[in-house]
Amino acid sequence: MFSRARQVDRVVLDPEERYNHAKSWNSYYKVDTTPDAIVYPKSTEEVVAIVKICERYKVPIIPFGGNTSIEGHLASPRGGVSIDMNLMKGIKELHIKDMDVVVEPGIGWIELNEFLKPFGLFFPLDPGPGASIGGMCATRCSGSLAVRYGTMRDNVISLKVVLASGDVVKTASRARKSAAGYDLTRLIIGSGGTLGVITEVTLRLQKIPEASVVAMCNFPSVKDAADVAIATMHSGIQVSRVELLDEVQIKAINLANGKHYPEQPTLMFELIGTEAYSLEQALQVKKIAEEHHASDFVFADTAKEKEDLWKMRKEALWACTTLRPEAEFMVTDVCVPLSRLAECIYTSKVLLDASPLICTIVSHAGDGNFHTIILLDPQSEEELKEAHRLADEMVKIALAMEGTCTGEHGVGVGKLKFLEEELGQEALMTMGKIKRTLDPNNIMNPGKTVPPEFCY
Amino acid sequence: MFSRARQVDRVVLDPEERYNHAKSWNSYYKVDTTPDAIVYPKSTEEVVAIVKICERYKVPIIPFGGNTSIEGHLASPRGGVSIDMNLMKGIKELHIKDMDVVVEPGIGWIELNEFLKPFGLFFPLDPGPGASIGGMCATRCSGSLAVRYGTMRDNVISLKVVLASGDVVKTASRARKSAAGYDLTRLIIGSGGTLGVITEVTLRLQKIPEASVVAMCNFPSVKDAADVAIATMHSGIQVSRVELLDEVQIKAINLANGKHYPEQPTLMFELIGTEAYSLEQALQVKKIAEEHHASDFVFADTAKEKEDLWKMRKEALWACTTLRPEAEFMVTDVCVPLSRLAECIYTSKVLLDASPLICTIVSHAGDGNFHTIILLDPQSEEELKEAHRLADEMVKIALAMEGTCTGEHGVGVGKLKFLEEELGQEALMTMGKIKRTLDPNNIMNPGKTVPPEFCY
Repeated sequence: MFSRARQVDRVVLDPEERYNHAKSWNSYYKVDTTPDAIVYPKSTEEVVAIVKICERYKVPIIPFGGNTSIEGHLASPRGGVSIDMNLMKGIKELHIKDMDVVVEPGIGWIELNEFLKPFGLFFPLDPGPGASIGGMCATRCSGSLAVRYGTMRDNVISLKVVLASGDVVKTASRARKSAAGYDLTRLIIGSGGTLGVITEVTLRLQKIPEASVVAMCNFPSVKDAADVAIATMHSGIQVSRVELLDEVQIKAINLANGKHYPEQPTLMFELIGTEAYSLEQALQVKKIAEEHHASDFVFADTAKEKEDLWKMRKEALWACTTLRPEAEFMVTDVCVPLSRLAECIYTSKVLLDASPLICTIVSHAGDGNFHTIILLDPQSEEELKEAHRLADEMVKIALAMEGTCTGEHGVGVGKLKFLEEELGQEALMTMGKIKRTLDPNNIMNPGKTVPPEFCY
Repeated sequence: MFSRARQVDRVVLDPEERYNHAKSWNSYYKVDTTPDAIVYPKSTEEVVAIVKICERYKVPIIPFGGNTSIEGHLASPRGGVSIDMNLMKGIKELHIKDMDVVVEPGIGWIELNEFLKPFGLFFPLDPGPGASIGGMCATRCSGSLAVRYGTMRDNVISLKVVLASGDVVKTASRARKSAAGYDLTRLIIGSGGTLGVITEVTLRLQKIPEASVVAMCNFPSVKDAADVAIATMHSGIQVSRVELLDEVQIKAINLANGKHYPEQPTLMFELIGTEAYSLEQALQVKKIAEEHHASDFVFADTAKEKEDLWKMRKEALWACTTLRPEAEFMVTDVCVPLSRLAECIYTSKVLLDASPLICTIVSHAGDGNFHTIILLDPQSEEELKEAHRLADEMVKIALAMEGTCTGEHGVGVGKLKFLEEELGQEALMTMGKIKRTLDPNNIMNPGKTVPPEFCY
């Protein structure tokens, strides 16, 4: 337990901080309420102590990581305690030969990769820059490399989780695979803090590839670009990234970076492996692209060029400020079966082009996942309403194609309303039963991930 | 609902059939009781009807697939109804462009791959030859290709499951990735029929590789062989298979197939990709092997040679009959973090060599997973006891190395007793709560997967 003196430093009641802990940047759910307090635990034991007090007095708990979630995962509709994990950023064990690492949840994926680099290893998920490993587990996130390495689901070996009861659960051994009992690891991943507080994560690591080839090319239409992504996946070529950007996004990148890329739908590829193999595969991709009206197929030659290209892609969101300087962003997130991606993007684009709001498209095309960045002034009720309308319409388009309302951002509160259409009442009733049995007083991030009417 | 006439054909009461539905081949738990009846549904609706009747009268249900499980998954301690899925083997939808397929659970992985071959696709899990897709989901199985493609956990997109309530749950959309709510797909995978009856499975498929290189080589010790597997994984070389066989297993293969392979610890590799790449990678593996005292490094030259080699590996179990003609087999299954594999196999081998029973080792070495085949006469109480002692000791060795009591065979009843040591009481209490809330009358495969004392 922590002493009274230290406790004072680590319990924050400041209203502005509390507001910042309830409202993530680029999120547009209502923030009428904030957590009543923010606490900064330093260990699993401290989290247990906090949870036990909250459970006794039925006080809501909102786990807080990198604050990059955008679907209202941090909303505090009933007040409560924000458990900020930013003092739990430690790397507890690195097992080089096992290619795994045991970390505390507050560490960011970028910090982790900086630590791992000298060992020739990396953790292959790359969501928004500030994301923490704990939050990435909670949202079941992925990113541009998921097409090659899978999502958080596939890259977490084991978790330590504090349940509402105060019990500390180890979800799995450290073996790379196991069939020992229910998959509690995967149950927690994507549960958005509604089943427990993650206090330790064992991650599977990858070897930094020997060589990579990065290429980009342009297309007359987004449909052509999406078709190439699909054909590439279907050819068996193992891309490590295949990102689609529409002409509006390229314009923003040009403006932000002083570049002159053709302002057309664009694909960016990465192929990895040995030098010979990545080039061999890149030439196969080039052939497919040329069969689909590609032009300006260029390779990034140097390590610096490659890095710059991915940096531009990674910062696509910020680049959009050049299109409308004062605007904020609403980022949408749907995913459809691969064969429907071209149609889904095309249909969405018709909708977006007809809107008065400026919108760009970026897609992890190899997974069938795409985001729209909608530029808006959130003070304008009209614009906010229009942005929500566009976001909702795109979800409806995706669901009609057997897709999902969230490919990688998670449900939070923003996507609750679509889950019944996507999964059916029976699945939600099942989730509600699990929520109730593990958190009978509904203290764990209440009102998120599973529609409340199915929980209590 | 099915008419009375058809019902007669599809309800079986024959005692021998009932015994065969309770006791899988190569399984050594006690079979004092059998199911009271076997039913053969043809649709999800029929499964719902069966489950609703069983729920009303609190009658146990034991889902039955390929009958290849070996940890007592099919035991019927309280009698009940064996739901045999062998009339539900249909392929409902093949989505070539999405690289997925929707199947009924009774279909075998071999049948499925025969169907898929003309489309250039395959499903990359290869457990025992008779295994059904539904059973493979239930046990969270894997096989030799898991090192490249992952386990069932990673290769199932969505399930349709009939819960004890009779509710039919669709666990996910058909998108390749999603963050929509709790991961019910993964909750069901590995739950061994204790949470519901799977009636439909959507599987992710892979492109049949353009080229492959298969190689084998021998080592003075199993430790050298295991070290090469580890070093290969750690080098970043992407093997599709890396299988270790000990000298006893090679002897059995020689005897069964009229071969003259050196009777030494042996590694078998497969590398896939383009022709140039798979060869490039194979030569890297060869270099690593030679640094670890490998001898007789040979490549399988023709497609026929490759096929024969994997066939021999696949049939390693049957080959063991040559070592002791009348014997049956007990197959063990532990998995440890990669760095401990050499030590784990070595320590286990000391134990096995000191036993009067003949034992062979086969290992999916790239995953840290290995099996011992113990030859025994199950009529001999002494031999049965000795075999169980060896199996238990090996689990203890693996658990002491942060490993798991089951890499891919599942818990059934056989591994129940090790779960508390592996995962701790809190994890089992959590599993028990989930079991109770989804199956309050404990009708779904009672007594398996989660120790009963944690469930009811």
